[in-house]
Amino acid sequence: MQIRIATRADVPAVLTLLADDQISRDRGFGSGEGPVPEEVDAAVWAAFEAIDADDRNELIVAVDGGEVIGTCQLTFIPGLSRGGAERMLIEAVRIDSGRRGQGLGGELIRWTIERARERGCRMVQLTTDKRRTDAHRFYAALGFEASHEGMKLAL
Amino acid sequence: MQIRIATRADVPAVLTLLADDQISRDRGFGSGEGPVPEEVDAAVWAAFEAIDADDRNELIVAVDGGEVIGTCQLTFIPGLSRGGAERMLIEAVRIDSGRRGQGLGGELIRWTIERARERGCRMVQLTTDKRRTDAHRFYAALGFEASHEGMKLAL
Repeated sequence: MQIRIATRADVPAVLTLLADDQISRDRGFGSGEGPVPEEVDAAVWAAFEAIDADDRNELIVAVDGGEVIGTCQLTFIPGLSRGGAERMLIEAVRIDSGRRGQGLGGELIRWTIERARERGCRMVQLTTDKRRTDAHRFYAALGFEASHEGMKLAL
Repeated sequence: MQIRIATRADVPAVLTLLADDQISRDRGFGSGEGPVPEEVDAAVWAAFEAIDADDRNELIVAVDGGEVIGTCQLTFIPGLSRGGAERMLIEAVRIDSGRRGQGLGGELIRWTIERARERGCRMVQLTTDKRRTDAHRFYAALGFEASHEGMKLAL
């Protein structure tokens, strides 16, 4: 499995992964029901270009046999705490529903943690829906502590 | 109370607010025990300059009678979900310990939510330590839902 920064050509596959999730659909986090149309919204392309042009945002894909089977987004956040070190936020983690349980998610997240270390981040953080109890165990096994409440306000 | 983007001159006061918090000190989030030295580390200045130069990061201060009595940091994160809309992350929220219980925190957070709306964000999110039960009630009263686990990994 290759893990790398996404290119424009990966965007439709990433959108398919983001949409392939019931909790996200329920919360309106995904792209709606059914397959993602071939035609990607201009606003979504603009978001991809914004991520691609920003040194503090990275859209990541995991590719196996030429197919995008996992994704996440990394944001590196400067801050005054911890001696001015960045923290890394992980968002929008998905593994293809047909490829789960094979350790690919662990490989992806460990890769991102290594990326944070290389960049000198002092903290990695993410939020995960309270209903995803399997995800909580998954992240705890990778060393994450469920120390905080993750609070959201949809606008 | 005036709420605005911080300038260089506000940085020592912001560091004092960040350090004035027992949970943060316990976790190593703050700047250590005791008063913040007048001399700010070069790395912390560099972090301030990084925030100041970045369109997607804003260090905010609340000022009353010429004194910085509150702070938070906003990060606007582009993403492919939700039609390509940004989400706003709120970090490092502090109100001067001598000025709590006067509604200033609510005023600060409502100001940031309005800023997110103006920018077209579809989501505002934050994490708050599980021990801060008063903070959970505070954010719930502002409309936030404790829907997620906030997971952290210190590096």
